[in-house]
Amino acid sequence: MARIALDASGGDFAPAQPVAGALEAVQNLPANCEIVLVGSRSEIEAELAKHGRQPDRISIVDAPEKIGMDEKPLAAVRSKRKSSIVTGLQLHRQGEVDAFISAGNTGAVMAASTLLLGLHDGVERPAIGTVLPSMKEEILLLDAGANVDCSPRELMGFAQLGAVYVRDVFERPDPVVGLLNIGEESEKGNAAAKEAYALLKTTTHFTFAGNIEGSDILVGRCDVVVCDGFVGNIVLKLIESVARTFDGMFRTALDASIVDSEAMKEVFHFLDYSSYGGAPLLGVQGVTIICHGRSSSRAIASALRVALRAVNVHLSDHIHDEFVEDGAVA
Amino acid sequence: MARIALDASGGDFAPAQPVAGALEAVQNLPANCEIVLVGSRSEIEAELAKHGRQPDRISIVDAPEKIGMDEKPLAAVRSKRKSSIVTGLQLHRQGEVDAFISAGNTGAVMAASTLLLGLHDGVERPAIGTVLPSMKEEILLLDAGANVDCSPRELMGFAQLGAVYVRDVFERPDPVVGLLNIGEESEKGNAAAKEAYALLKTTTHFTFAGNIEGSDILVGRCDVVVCDGFVGNIVLKLIESVARTFDGMFRTALDASIVDSEAMKEVFHFLDYSSYGGAPLLGVQGVTIICHGRSSSRAIASALRVALRAVNVHLSDHIHDEFVEDGAVA
Repeated sequence: MARIALDASGGDFAPAQPVAGALEAVQNLPANCEIVLVGSRSEIEAELAKHGRQPDRISIVDAPEKIGMDEKPLAAVRSKRKSSIVTGLQLHRQGEVDAFISAGNTGAVMAASTLLLGLHDGVERPAIGTVLPSMKEEILLLDAGANVDCSPRELMGFAQLGAVYVRDVFERPDPVVGLLNIGEESEKGNAAAKEAYALLKTTTHFTFAGNIEGSDILVGRCDVVVCDGFVGNIVLKLIESVARTFDGMFRTALDASIVDSEAMKEVFHFLDYSSYGGAPLLGVQGVTIICHGRSSSRAIASALRVALRAVNVHLSDHIHDEFVEDGAVA
Repeated sequence: MARIALDASGGDFAPAQPVAGALEAVQNLPANCEIVLVGSRSEIEAELAKHGRQPDRISIVDAPEKIGMDEKPLAAVRSKRKSSIVTGLQLHRQGEVDAFISAGNTGAVMAASTLLLGLHDGVERPAIGTVLPSMKEEILLLDAGANVDCSPRELMGFAQLGAVYVRDVFERPDPVVGLLNIGEESEKGNAAAKEAYALLKTTTHFTFAGNIEGSDILVGRCDVVVCDGFVGNIVLKLIESVARTFDGMFRTALDASIVDSEAMKEVFHFLDYSSYGGAPLLGVQGVTIICHGRSSSRAIASALRVALRAVNVHLSDHIHDEFVEDGAVA
């Protein structure tokens, strides 16, 4: 039995999109999976009523308070104990649910996850992993914005977290990890990257591909791309903007019949983050998935599938094992 | 009279593409402009012979040594005094030419430019400015890789250099400068970005737009995007790879007739760096333009036009004035 808590009050389109996403997902999830909608009970019930049904495997936990998208994370988490974010993560901490998903205030989800779930021993900082498209398969880039000014050891930790995630969730037994840098040679890069390279090349836990460059990301040279959260966030947002930019240009340059063709939609689907199912917050003792604030019901449903997979394959246990066993950075 | 020195031995396709680029450019340059090809005289003459002509306004300065693309920059510059890079920049230093262009070893061009031309008073570090496409007009991002681990004052300096360049070369009298960051608020970002924000907001020399995010680059919110060279180089290479990635996807998804249509070519032209004319090395006393190692003759011709414009508008003098007058960072 797996139970996934979903923040029904989080995101720009709550509660409509989270509730619709839960309804979309529950049809295709295995029978032993339940979704717990966390948020204002009356709002959730009103939303479910619009759809005319409340399926068996969706329950509600009332959390009347809301943390706004622009609130200061730590202060909000401390003062709003009845918010959907704090309530959902308390359920996770108490073992009532196995995972928590939110499209709400990212900083608050991170802060509450770290405070309530705690970090695995040996993990210095949690990282946001973001799934990106590539010419080969989807890849994981981390950190995507949880940490700026990272130490070499933290970058090494991100590589470990990413490798376990890719092994478990993407089902790739031998993940290849690259360090995002400005040249292939070991002496390239800023101070943190140079030292991280030296740490990474000693690992025996995954294949280290060495430094990779900005041009290698979309090519799919690596399963895991490691960088600090400053670089990662800029890269992520730049890639997200590419689809919008191209769409605008194509609409100007080409006939609408071509732009709206099925073939073209496939291309744009490649860059549509909603199909990639949210960003795992890695390093916490549990499963937290952070969705884009503008997530559609489809994106939420996708995140629910990813969370279920992470629970079923025991991602959190494997991260624990990785850091306990690890001698490379001890 | 303007004289531009062009490195005929630099780049992956030298001397063929530089020589062809000079021939392409000279037809359209004003009568008072000369191109000086710097490199192995015999190789240049052989290459010109293939084209069956040596126009009046192209001359040759013999520089028999070559600096390889992978040589250590400083050591190469110090030991190879008769290389095309050192020779060309010595001509510039002596006032024999007004600008130098090379598609050769970027590090060597930077090192030789800094050593031979010197920096303008007040400039802490030279920066590579790279011209990027945007939905509005072309924009300048700097630093694109000359400096990693930049101080807030250096970032401030890049903003000044970029603003002068955009005013002079893009002919935009009131350039808008944005600081590349991971959020719009002033307290966002890594330590250097936060302090740079505080410096930038005091300036009266250009319009500071505040922090911009990765998603704002291609939108064209700013004329100048400021970041350290680690971030800038990754962004630059990622954007360069987007055209290749999309081209591959379109060829798989769409009919060849559409992919090769004129309308589609226009879209890809948008992302074709060769039309943007090389990257200025800003902060040195003179005009140095660095071209991509894989530059085509068209890219070289484009760089020659940009160099001529920079000379004619007295870019270097204006950079001098900017830093002498400047009280903001004094």
